[in-house]
Amino acid sequence: MNKKTILNNLAKIVLTEAILMIPSLILCLIYGEHEDAMAFALTIVIAIVPSLFFVRMKGTGLGPKDGYVIVATAWVIISLIGAIPLYLSGAFSSYISAFFEIVSGFTTTGASVMDDPGVLGHGMQFFRCFSHWIGGMGVLVFVLMLIPMENDTSMHLVRAEVPGPTAGKIVPKMKETSRILYGIYAGITFTMVLCLKIFGMPLFDAFCYAFATAGTGGFSITSAGLGLYNSKAIEYTISIFMLICGVNFNIYYLILIGKIREAFKTEELKVYLGIVATAIVLVGCNVYKLFGNVEETFRLTLFQVASIQTTTGFTTADYSLWPLFSQHILVLLMIIGGSAGSTAGGMKVSRVIILWKSFVAEIRGIINPKQIVRVRVNGEVVPEKTLDSTRIYASAYLLIVCLAVLALSANGLDFTTNVTAVLACFNNIGPGLSLVGPAANYGVYADWAKLILAIIMLTGRLEIFPMFLLFARSAHDK
Amino acid sequence: MNKKTILNNLAKIVLTEAILMIPSLILCLIYGEHEDAMAFALTIVIAIVPSLFFVRMKGTGLGPKDGYVIVATAWVIISLIGAIPLYLSGAFSSYISAFFEIVSGFTTTGASVMDDPGVLGHGMQFFRCFSHWIGGMGVLVFVLMLIPMENDTSMHLVRAEVPGPTAGKIVPKMKETSRILYGIYAGITFTMVLCLKIFGMPLFDAFCYAFATAGTGGFSITSAGLGLYNSKAIEYTISIFMLICGVNFNIYYLILIGKIREAFKTEELKVYLGIVATAIVLVGCNVYKLFGNVEETFRLTLFQVASIQTTTGFTTADYSLWPLFSQHILVLLMIIGGSAGSTAGGMKVSRVIILWKSFVAEIRGIINPKQIVRVRVNGEVVPEKTLDSTRIYASAYLLIVCLAVLALSANGLDFTTNVTAVLACFNNIGPGLSLVGPAANYGVYADWAKLILAIIMLTGRLEIFPMFLLFARSAHDK
Repeated sequence: MNKKTILNNLAKIVLTEAILMIPSLILCLIYGEHEDAMAFALTIVIAIVPSLFFVRMKGTGLGPKDGYVIVATAWVIISLIGAIPLYLSGAFSSYISAFFEIVSGFTTTGASVMDDPGVLGHGMQFFRCFSHWIGGMGVLVFVLMLIPMENDTSMHLVRAEVPGPTAGKIVPKMKETSRILYGIYAGITFTMVLCLKIFGMPLFDAFCYAFATAGTGGFSITSAGLGLYNSKAIEYTISIFMLICGVNFNIYYLILIGKIREAFKTEELKVYLGIVATAIVLVGCNVYKLFGNVEETFRLTLFQVASIQTTTGFTTADYSLWPLFSQHILVLLMIIGGSAGSTAGGMKVSRVIILWKSFVAEIRGIINPKQIVRVRVNGEVVPEKTLDSTRIYASAYLLIVCLAVLALSANGLDFTTNVTAVLACFNNIGPGLSLVGPAANYGVYADWAKLILAIIMLTGRLEIFPMFLLFARSAHDK
Repeated sequence: MNKKTILNNLAKIVLTEAILMIPSLILCLIYGEHEDAMAFALTIVIAIVPSLFFVRMKGTGLGPKDGYVIVATAWVIISLIGAIPLYLSGAFSSYISAFFEIVSGFTTTGASVMDDPGVLGHGMQFFRCFSHWIGGMGVLVFVLMLIPMENDTSMHLVRAEVPGPTAGKIVPKMKETSRILYGIYAGITFTMVLCLKIFGMPLFDAFCYAFATAGTGGFSITSAGLGLYNSKAIEYTISIFMLICGVNFNIYYLILIGKIREAFKTEELKVYLGIVATAIVLVGCNVYKLFGNVEETFRLTLFQVASIQTTTGFTTADYSLWPLFSQHILVLLMIIGGSAGSTAGGMKVSRVIILWKSFVAEIRGIINPKQIVRVRVNGEVVPEKTLDSTRIYASAYLLIVCLAVLALSANGLDFTTNVTAVLACFNNIGPGLSLVGPAANYGVYADWAKLILAIIMLTGRLEIFPMFLLFARSAHDK
């Protein structure tokens, strides 16, 4: 492990974060929110001063383990820094609450501890929603776009940060790849801002909601949420964009360069759309009697399913009042999540496909012990290493959920609340059921429990391994 | 697949079941329960007539897949037949309820649909508890002891039926192995009957509870359960014997042949005892304030922890009234379960060890990509095949629990009830939380839901793969 290189990289990331706070600072000044402006200015100074010292350090190249260590440390540090302005705004009861909120932002969870986010100023609102946008595609992927790095180094970083078992380059150069990804991402986001504006949303709100949707985050800027606009067009727009952002971005690149047929052949896309369609039909039939109106049933079901499946976490209906069968389907969608290489969280559709095919292969292996059964996705054999990590991921998932629920139980809330809070945080969704349901917030938990949930969000966003590597002894030894 | 051989083996198993009903029939006659006696006599005839026809068939040897198919089919058939006398007794509302009860018996789950098992006659009570005893060590292992089979054939059967990832022979001949296992099992059971009798339990009750404890089943013979005897000695006796039966029986064999040191070196034994001790300390400290008495706290904690960890499911305290932290620990113990090669259910301690070590190895592999990291248990490298099955087992576990909870949700009960009912059935424990808690029973579920839970119990007892093989198309093709 090369400490100098790591510090140098971390300094670059913190500097980038400071730069990313400038738009929020400017908004504060425009809207005359001087105290908030001071909070941002102070944070920017705190971030810049030590970074300028470390950014001069020169180190050698990075090993694969260093990539994981940088990613995990970077996410913790940017959250620690990002919590400062929120805390200074005075809207949070403690620094830990502010930390929970910004971790929820960067990890695109969207779980909030605020009864009414409307009390925040414009600059803070913007920063809170912008954290979804940056966290969605990846903080480090963003940094790579701005700052030159060796190709090998950047590949290691991206592999640790981008969701899914099959993260890879789109084009040979990592810098190019990150530019393409952010280009597509920005394109989608601005199209969305435009649509929302056309359908009557104020421009500032449109930006906030577009950031929160594109990053599949889910922060609302008022306690009324999207209900405030009372517009079916806005609900449909957000439903569709949530679904768009739950798709692997590589597919959009394939479409852009004209390989449309190849794009639509991807197995994960088919399964993803299949799950969404099945869930809409099942939940729709189950809740129809509540509304008695086809359009309303379809609109609310589409929105809730898209929101949970893509792990965004917006709600336009309190699904905790829906029949249990529908609630259970939504919990199942929470676990599955979006596609690999999208901004969505969860276990990822591609992992579910691999796990299912492994299971079938195991059954086949018992039937024909002499035949070698391989797992194929998109017609290609999945390497043994990917299979192993995916299976270990599933076991670790089970382990972490059990232990986290156990730890939270000491806070005294009920079983349903604890299980769904852990699932909603680990899979970066936001709302769960019962006391953390769509109409409630995470303020019910004590500070120590919020800290655990924040760690769970980071572990979920970085897909388990980087966070554990931080604590693995041998990572520091060498 | 050789249909004749399969039918021949199934016929042998059904014949054995008919023979095993004779003691219950005799008890009915002794206690003058003539209607119950008729029920057993009728069932024995139903079982024997077709079997006598198929038992004459001669087939060739069995392949590995046939072993799984025989085991899965056999467990379904003996349950279908075993439900007949219970249904004819008139104590059950439907044949499906009786089927649920006997599946719960054979799989050593101990989940009951009866408000008061005391309404059953002596013969029925005995049969119900005896099903735990036979199911605990394995129906087919029992059959192997009585009926000659080729060594290869029997090995395939045992591998499919005996719990845990490392089932194997104790001695080269499988017939000898099954005799040794059942010998140790019977020795433990009779010692227990003796202890219970000495501490004041009537002999009939002592037999029933010894069967239910040794098989880690958990059926009580009255609604008062063990509270009826109001004896601390009996509670301690049962606690200790539950823990004894949650240990791999190979260890007792090692002790019997004098390899005591080797026996106590086993990693699984250490971890198993470690988990029990840790759980007792954590739960004990948590519930102490409820009792305010060290002896009572220790006794109740020991009993409840031993009962859940070994998946027996007896209760001497309504833990659904305990603090949430303790309840969560018990749910965690439900998932872990007892040792491989014991009569206990659950995921098994050895699987948890393998999964944990796989996870650590994966982390190490990221740190040192060039080093080959192997998973070792008891100092020996775990074969890649065992690692794969264990990881796939964990993924399938997650999948099955999710789908079963989803299916049950259509019955309209709450989330906690459904999740813990599925966990308690899949891990063959018995009681869960909320509406299926220690003070309640599974009568709250509709018949179709009971059928799903019965399938879940069988899937859990046979450790997932055999049940799925029954439905795998290619298993019938060949």
